[in-house]
Amino acid sequence: MQKPLMQRGKFITFEGSEGCGKSTQIKRFVASLEKHAIEVIQTREPGGTVVGEKIRNLLQFDEETADLTSESELLLFAASRAQLVRRVIEPALEAGSWVVADRFLDSTAVYQGVGRGLDLDAVTAINRFAVGRAMPDLTLLLDLDVTIGHARAVAASGGKKDRMEDQPLDFFELVRKGYLELAAADPERIAVIDASASIDEVSAAIDACFNSRLGGVQG
Amino acid sequence: MQKPLMQRGKFITFEGSEGCGKSTQIKRFVASLEKHAIEVIQTREPGGTVVGEKIRNLLQFDEETADLTSESELLLFAASRAQLVRRVIEPALEAGSWVVADRFLDSTAVYQGVGRGLDLDAVTAINRFAVGRAMPDLTLLLDLDVTIGHARAVAASGGKKDRMEDQPLDFFELVRKGYLELAAADPERIAVIDASASIDEVSAAIDACFNSRLGGVQG
Repeated sequence: MQKPLMQRGKFITFEGSEGCGKSTQIKRFVASLEKHAIEVIQTREPGGTVVGEKIRNLLQFDEETADLTSESELLLFAASRAQLVRRVIEPALEAGSWVVADRFLDSTAVYQGVGRGLDLDAVTAINRFAVGRAMPDLTLLLDLDVTIGHARAVAASGGKKDRMEDQPLDFFELVRKGYLELAAADPERIAVIDASASIDEVSAAIDACFNSRLGGVQG
Repeated sequence: MQKPLMQRGKFITFEGSEGCGKSTQIKRFVASLEKHAIEVIQTREPGGTVVGEKIRNLLQFDEETADLTSESELLLFAASRAQLVRRVIEPALEAGSWVVADRFLDSTAVYQGVGRGLDLDAVTAINRFAVGRAMPDLTLLLDLDVTIGHARAVAASGGKKDRMEDQPLDFFELVRKGYLELAAADPERIAVIDASASIDEVSAAIDACFNSRLGGVQG
């Protein structure tokens, strides 16, 4: 009997604005995959590689880099992602592991593209270049009213703001709208999950979506 | 009498492979501009801003970043350039200063694009995004047989190689060919200067080209 060929792993990304509950939901989702003996790699961006962590430091808001331009910021996110895709995500998927990402290309499209008012064709071209073959099989967009999300995010940060949280509420509205437009344009990949419900309810909605979209863990 | 409107400065870039004599020629060219009381800013890449210098460190070949992917490398160069253009080059040109750059977007097109075999349409799109309005008024390409250039570069480095010099000669051939193709495609902007002549002869050729293309310092 021939050994079956290694099946490529699934690549699932979580998106959503600050305070939408991504971290909590990712933890639950990964735990449920691991219960089915699935090897799961978790990634965060920017970072996840030696080069990516150096870029992450550069992107942290501080006095020295306070004048970072939107264009440079976008390209730094893309550089971190290009490295992560080729050194971590692709090798893992090839080896049959699953990859769960906390933010991926859609974050760049909405935070840098829509949020900063950059040329969207250029942002798309840069995103494609950075991502290469590694398009997500499923993207779970945790959607939430921005006033709730922003208040949650500020409370969680204990008043310490980073470059993104230091933005007016209008910016978060733009981001939410941007996400929903992406989902409308690519409904096969991006599923919108109502993140205003309780943690258990959101978790159940994610599992149901995952089962119907990717056929559950047997997928 | 009305004060004349500030005239935008000229933007001149020098390109060419290792050992072509760029640094020497830039020094002479800038000195001759300054003799005519022209305010000149010199830039180098990657670097030239706080963010850019941090990116420059990241791009230096060392053990930690030895596995930098070609895609990430390209995006880091672009990020450094995006910052330099918006924080240094554009403000200087607007204020009427001239800018002389040691390498600019053509380096990325040939070293990362052609040399690393990346998708040229993507490289062009990323270059355009990074550069914005700041296209050079004139690019002086110092062209040289690669065996001469490579030997000069290795001798000058005292045996210390960086990421780029640690490439086989074939890579330098690709780079030279790439540069000449760019010049053929955009002859109005890019002038090819024979860099195999003596320093004085190359310098004279640069001055002659500059005078005929940009009408000299009265331009």
